Amino acid sequence: MAHDIAALKARLAGIALEDNPALVRQKSRDFFWYSPTLKRQLDSVAGALIATPSSEGEVLRILEACFALGIPVTPRGAGTGNYGQAMPLAGGLVLDMSGLDKVLEVAPGRVRAQAGAIIAEIDTACRSSGQELRLHPSTYRTASIGGFIAGGSGGVGSITWGGLRDLGNIIGLRIVTMEATPRILELTGEEVEKVAHAYGTNGIILEVEMPLAPAYDWIEAIIGFGDFTRAAAFANALGEQDAILKKLLSVISAPIPQDYFLRHRPYLPAGEHVVLAMIAPIASAAFDSFTARWGGRVLFHSDRTGPEEARGLPPLYELAWNHTTLRALRVDPAITYLQTLYPFPDQLALVARIHEELGDEVPAHLEFVRFDGKITCFGLPLVRFTDETRLEAIIARHEALGIPVFNPHRYTLEEGGMKQTDAVQLAFKREADPAGLLNPGKMIAWENPDFDFSTGRTYLFPGLSAQAREE
Amino acid sequence: MAHDIAALKARLAGIALEDNPALVRQKSRDFFWYSPTLKRQLDSVAGALIATPSSEGEVLRILEACFALGIPVTPRGAGTGNYGQAMPLAGGLVLDMSGLDKVLEVAPGRVRAQAGAIIAEIDTACRSSGQELRLHPSTYRTASIGGFIAGGSGGVGSITWGGLRDLGNIIGLRIVTMEATPRILELTGEEVEKVAHAYGTNGIILEVEMPLAPAYDWIEAIIGFGDFTRAAAFANALGEQDAILKKLLSVISAPIPQDYFLRHRPYLPAGEHVVLAMIAPIASAAFDSFTARWGGRVLFHSDRTGPEEARGLPPLYELAWNHTTLRALRVDPAITYLQTLYPFPDQLALVARIHEELGDEVPAHLEFVRFDGKITCFGLPLVRFTDETRLEAIIARHEALGIPVFNPHRYTLEEGGMKQTDAVQLAFKREADPAGLLNPGKMIAWENPDFDFSTGRTYLFPGLSAQAREE
Repeated sequence: MAHDIAALKARLAGIALEDNPALVRQKSRDFFWYSPTLKRQLDSVAGALIATPSSEGEVLRILEACFALGIPVTPRGAGTGNYGQAMPLAGGLVLDMSGLDKVLEVAPGRVRAQAGAIIAEIDTACRSSGQELRLHPSTYRTASIGGFIAGGSGGVGSITWGGLRDLGNIIGLRIVTMEATPRILELTGEEVEKVAHAYGTNGIILEVEMPLAPAYDWIEAIIGFGDFTRAAAFANALGEQDAILKKLLSVISAPIPQDYFLRHRPYLPAGEHVVLAMIAPIASAAFDSFTARWGGRVLFHSDRTGPEEARGLPPLYELAWNHTTLRALRVDPAITYLQTLYPFPDQLALVARIHEELGDEVPAHLEFVRFDGKITCFGLPLVRFTDETRLEAIIARHEALGIPVFNPHRYTLEEGGMKQTDAVQLAFKREADPAGLLNPGKMIAWENPDFDFSTGRTYLFPGLSAQAREE
Repeated sequence: MAHDIAALKARLAGIALEDNPALVRQKSRDFFWYSPTLKRQLDSVAGALIATPSSEGEVLRILEACFALGIPVTPRGAGTGNYGQAMPLAGGLVLDMSGLDKVLEVAPGRVRAQAGAIIAEIDTACRSSGQELRLHPSTYRTASIGGFIAGGSGGVGSITWGGLRDLGNIIGLRIVTMEATPRILELTGEEVEKVAHAYGTNGIILEVEMPLAPAYDWIEAIIGFGDFTRAAAFANALGEQDAILKKLLSVISAPIPQDYFLRHRPYLPAGEHVVLAMIAPIASAAFDSFTARWGGRVLFHSDRTGPEEARGLPPLYELAWNHTTLRALRVDPAITYLQTLYPFPDQLALVARIHEELGDEVPAHLEFVRFDGKITCFGLPLVRFTDETRLEAIIARHEALGIPVFNPHRYTLEEGGMKQTDAVQLAFKREADPAGLLNPGKMIAWENPDFDFSTGRTYLFPGLSAQAREE
């Protein structure tokens, strides 16, 4: 179906639009190229027009116009996602939310901001009241809060607060529906689950209200161990220290740190498996005692590093979560990665098992988190990529061992997540996007209700080929 | 051994002393009468003299004088302990620390106070910076911080922060030793474990440095369930909600609330088993959603109670922890209690099992906490006391089922705790109290190194009879 972009432009007079093909293509992409599979599938994806509203009223005008003309709308924050979340598989309009970037209110325990606000900017606004966001992705300095909620799941802070899916980590969302006359809704409590981590398929997030935690000048520490399973056990035990307040707790096996953490290299002796930890200053002495008990070697400690020496070092969280993979990719473009969960209480045994079997081809990277009230870890292992068949075999091997994989080589909500229909999100899409114009191709349950997840077959959105014609 | 109290008085000229027998007896007691066993054993315990120093210098003078004269010193905070912690089994001097009550410094994330400072007063001082203590006992409004650390283990706040034993819940302690020339030591990191929960047997706490958490106007909620095991399962699941910030999570079986929570009675229908919860206001909507999912009945909610109606209601934490027993005792003096731990991951099955077997005689009271990184619960069940033999049988039955009992009917550290020698605390006593003058009779490992805990025999301090002669 050809979209009447000319008619759309006419209706959107006065709103910032961009149709320069190079710029449109740039704003139609995210970090999908982490995955060789997505790179192959999505490299030609582009919208027809970018709109950058500067007010809620402009967002409503855009949605009303697109609905009237049957033009798909794919919302975009800062484009820091990894799964093509913000890529317009069916072409049409890319709704760039970066113009709605205001921090609206900071109060004790909570902040309200527009969806396009950059996460680091929100923290800056909260800092004078001694507060900061509970959770942020490793793309803290560039990602938008709306994009994090629509396309992220947790990250830095999850060791204390769990994930975005946990009730209470998003206080409220102000959203707008995609209808003839778009409606504004305020969602709170469990209602936020309707649109959180839905890639913008069933509503456009306008504003967010997030809980805040006390801000600290977090100590950044890198602790080394000669044995990988010992490093993992230390991190698990440190995670279970309820009184040592933490913001990050990552385990990265050698030689990842030595090969890819270029600025930190002077601190990283060959062969050391490392634990990255962000610790509240008030827990400093407790952390030292605990580390000494385990025989951990303190390779780096931000409180014991001079300002001259520290200059030029990236923040520790930019070695962790998805930034670990990014640093590896910058050195070796053949690297890719997986996203796995090591279920409690077997996490350490499973970590050891898979590392023993695949550790050279799939170097281990663990992120410890609170998950359903227990400490366990996600895996974000690197993969020394050969071909897609081998990648699928590696995934299958994890699943056979009881290690679920949230496949980062798929662009749909379901395949990248729990591999089942989210009935709440599907029902809300019927209500909020009856014409199916929001971010088409990302929710299998909508596009193909009969799709059988049990076959393991990859879902391919038919519109992907259609939109190629539109360009 | 007779103590030369007259010589002591002479040496302590200028320090506030009290030797009126009625007042001395009053200041030689705590809430030991919670236990019929301790009431029988300790009712006649009294020191010979109370000293109430008003400065660190006076504390040092007192210790130096007592050491020179060989007079035992038993430190006392506000006397709100339940196990005779602050009772001078060997007579001598009671060191009343209530005169050292200053809050010295409030900084981001931490507070420093003198040991005799009342916990609620510390929080008042911290409030202007938006902070409060992580942990407090139900005797918040009367207990001293030094007494809490010397004789307590956790309480309100443990659902988020674990217990005082956890590394990081006490930042530092300034203590003084009992030697010819008392030494002042600053302990931090794991060093605090030398004297925390040691009943003042191996050093006198002068100052404490404690971590702070954000202060909230905590929502107080009472949720009702028709079925006790359902109430317990709800509380366990709510405990595991990492993003719903909590300060208290108690489960109390019917008819305890109806019979003993007199002021709250209008909110407590017959037969309802209740969950007491203190929830951060930012988690209000999430808590509502979660409660509705479980079919919990909101019997009381502080945000939905008018000021007139709320007047005269005690704070919710004064229905919980050791206050539950206190309220029962006020109505029925024959009530006593136990302290148990339901080990993870079997806590709900063990709770159901013991409740089914003993629920009428031992009505259930659970306090959910974080313990070694997991959510589980302590039990503080009431006991409808008949005699000590039956009480021992009830304790034995718990232990046979795999439910450890921290026996509140014993006055020694070991029997009330882990029933084993604490080598760290014993070693430190050798160093800091070589003459064994601090709080005699409380540390079995010191008094009788050959005592065999495995026999289950009760330790009886020989000095208990000796001190009766002194009066």
